[in-house]
Amino acid sequence: MTDRYQDFRRLAAALGTEAVALVPGPNFTRLYGHVFHTNERPLVVVIPVTGTPAAVVPNLELTSFAALNFEGEVFDWRDQTGYADAFAALAAHMPLKSLAVEGQVMRVFVQLALTETQPRLRIVDGEKAITSLRYRKTPEEIAAMERAIAISEAALGDTLDRVRIGQTERQIEAMLVQAMFAHGAEEQAFGALVACGPHSAASHAHARDVAVRAGDPLLIDFGARWGGLCADITRTVFVGHCTDAAAAVYEVVLAANEKGHAVTKPGITAHDVDDAVISVLEASAYADRIRTKTGHGLGRDVHEAPYMMRGNHQILEPGVVFTNEPGLYHPDHFGIRIEDDMLVTETGSRSLTRFPKDIRIVG
Amino acid sequence: MTDRYQDFRRLAAALGTEAVALVPGPNFTRLYGHVFHTNERPLVVVIPVTGTPAAVVPNLELTSFAALNFEGEVFDWRDQTGYADAFAALAAHMPLKSLAVEGQVMRVFVQLALTETQPRLRIVDGEKAITSLRYRKTPEEIAAMERAIAISEAALGDTLDRVRIGQTERQIEAMLVQAMFAHGAEEQAFGALVACGPHSAASHAHARDVAVRAGDPLLIDFGARWGGLCADITRTVFVGHCTDAAAAVYEVVLAANEKGHAVTKPGITAHDVDDAVISVLEASAYADRIRTKTGHGLGRDVHEAPYMMRGNHQILEPGVVFTNEPGLYHPDHFGIRIEDDMLVTETGSRSLTRFPKDIRIVG
Repeated sequence: MTDRYQDFRRLAAALGTEAVALVPGPNFTRLYGHVFHTNERPLVVVIPVTGTPAAVVPNLELTSFAALNFEGEVFDWRDQTGYADAFAALAAHMPLKSLAVEGQVMRVFVQLALTETQPRLRIVDGEKAITSLRYRKTPEEIAAMERAIAISEAALGDTLDRVRIGQTERQIEAMLVQAMFAHGAEEQAFGALVACGPHSAASHAHARDVAVRAGDPLLIDFGARWGGLCADITRTVFVGHCTDAAAAVYEVVLAANEKGHAVTKPGITAHDVDDAVISVLEASAYADRIRTKTGHGLGRDVHEAPYMMRGNHQILEPGVVFTNEPGLYHPDHFGIRIEDDMLVTETGSRSLTRFPKDIRIVG
Repeated sequence: MTDRYQDFRRLAAALGTEAVALVPGPNFTRLYGHVFHTNERPLVVVIPVTGTPAAVVPNLELTSFAALNFEGEVFDWRDQTGYADAFAALAAHMPLKSLAVEGQVMRVFVQLALTETQPRLRIVDGEKAITSLRYRKTPEEIAAMERAIAISEAALGDTLDRVRIGQTERQIEAMLVQAMFAHGAEEQAFGALVACGPHSAASHAHARDVAVRAGDPLLIDFGARWGGLCADITRTVFVGHCTDAAAAVYEVVLAANEKGHAVTKPGITAHDVDDAVISVLEASAYADRIRTKTGHGLGRDVHEAPYMMRGNHQILEPGVVFTNEPGLYHPDHFGIRIEDDMLVTETGSRSLTRFPKDIRIVG
């Protein structure tokens, strides 16, 4: 019988810790195939380098937790009495001097619950090592991501067909989100970004009650989640017409995006891809509009390794998925971004995103 | 000129710490009126008991951060070089021995970034004190919550009108979510729960590809977010017909919910309300189906103080909003829950939820 914890045991040892702790989130879901909600009730699984794991679980979740077929000791706790005793029982059962945790997922109150009963416990951020287990996607994960992308692209198609001059960013966002759920999204992978005119140059802009006008670029950055996996797609379209100035910038961004497709293959690094993509932008007349790196890994998290930037010499391997999303942004005029989700294959790469990238006029 | 940090300075002092740190999340948004996304890039504001605050901000967010009119020093950092230097600069600028943090919001990697540059920094979980600033809702927050609730109730009405025997839980959930966005939701306050038959007795159940059948109870627990504030509403309806057995249980749950409305007024405690509500369930023939407390506070978080449970002697004050959601759950048969959002007023209470609670047949 295989030990489903072997990867975690190995990485705990490699990090020089006695155990690794997991809390609800992408690593937990991938291991157990069951989603627990992150809330005010601590739930933590501790996997030692050798031996049986143990867990602290809210009493309310015991029935759901039973579905994991958890192998070890479970210390449950109730809202009425709090969780301190359960953590003390865990510490007595499995005394530890060092523990690797998911630094980007575990919140401070859970860490404090662990250290308050074991004041000498050394906490190590194992985020990078733990998420590296998700670096190469499985065929099942790729299939789920393709479904998330198909849902997203169908929703984008519906929405662009229905955009009209005078609709607000917020109305367009609402159409898009409804279309994602109509096409089968489990949830949004992240809050969709719908921005027109100069707003399209803002980072992480929120949709406003501002109407789109003829000549506006309209930037839409969004994605559905399906089967726990994320899509993350951006298209920039033009309302009514596209000015020559905007078209010229668009073609540069598209060329950079296409460069990313052309160079990606296993064995090269994130640095190499970013360097190739950004070089296209730098060689253009708009080098002063560069503001971001090429992209980021995509999977159960919207942002994960590999971060596609110069200086990151992480090697791309078959099964890695990342966003290829060059952009040019002028704060007073407009921003243009084109974002595809790319899979590194055995021989090169394949775009999971298929939505057309020709200049498109809507409204 | 008022000092917008005075509440935070006071609570840092009361906690015996030199400063309080805020990261993107509900407290941050309430203070600055601006939403930053939680992601892999640390952003933290440190407010000392006296003097000017300071912040560590991702370079990518500097433009958005400028909108806060932040009064103090800002240490920014770039993806390419990482954030260690920015935290070191913060530590040099504002050396601290103790710091209160939001234990339920701050993640471990941010805490480690703070403590790695100041190894003797004592971290105190200030969650309870910090969120207590949100205990009494402002008129603006109550108005936003009423709008979130109106959106949610309109969506529920549309959805129940359209439920048909043979639709799956997932299809019904998709209709509900689309209706929320059609009515103006900014986002879902949490992932909606749509569960029929025995599944309605599961806690935090996810919608399945299972069709609703005649005679099924259909439990729907959901809510929109608007203006940053949450709705959280549950109704249990019946598909095709309601059995006498289910109706009998329903009436007990409804009586408990109405008891909660009747007893709530300022000056009594969360314990008092829970005791009154749960006593109704305990006095029934279904006492063995009790599994949860009466509810929880509601605001910028779906779950916040006051936790409505026996043993919590926190006093209800005007402006407090909480969920009144008694339920009875039989794992082999069905669960019934009725959840209203209630505002404590100067003289008693007012239900912000208005959706009818009579037994309703759908399909």
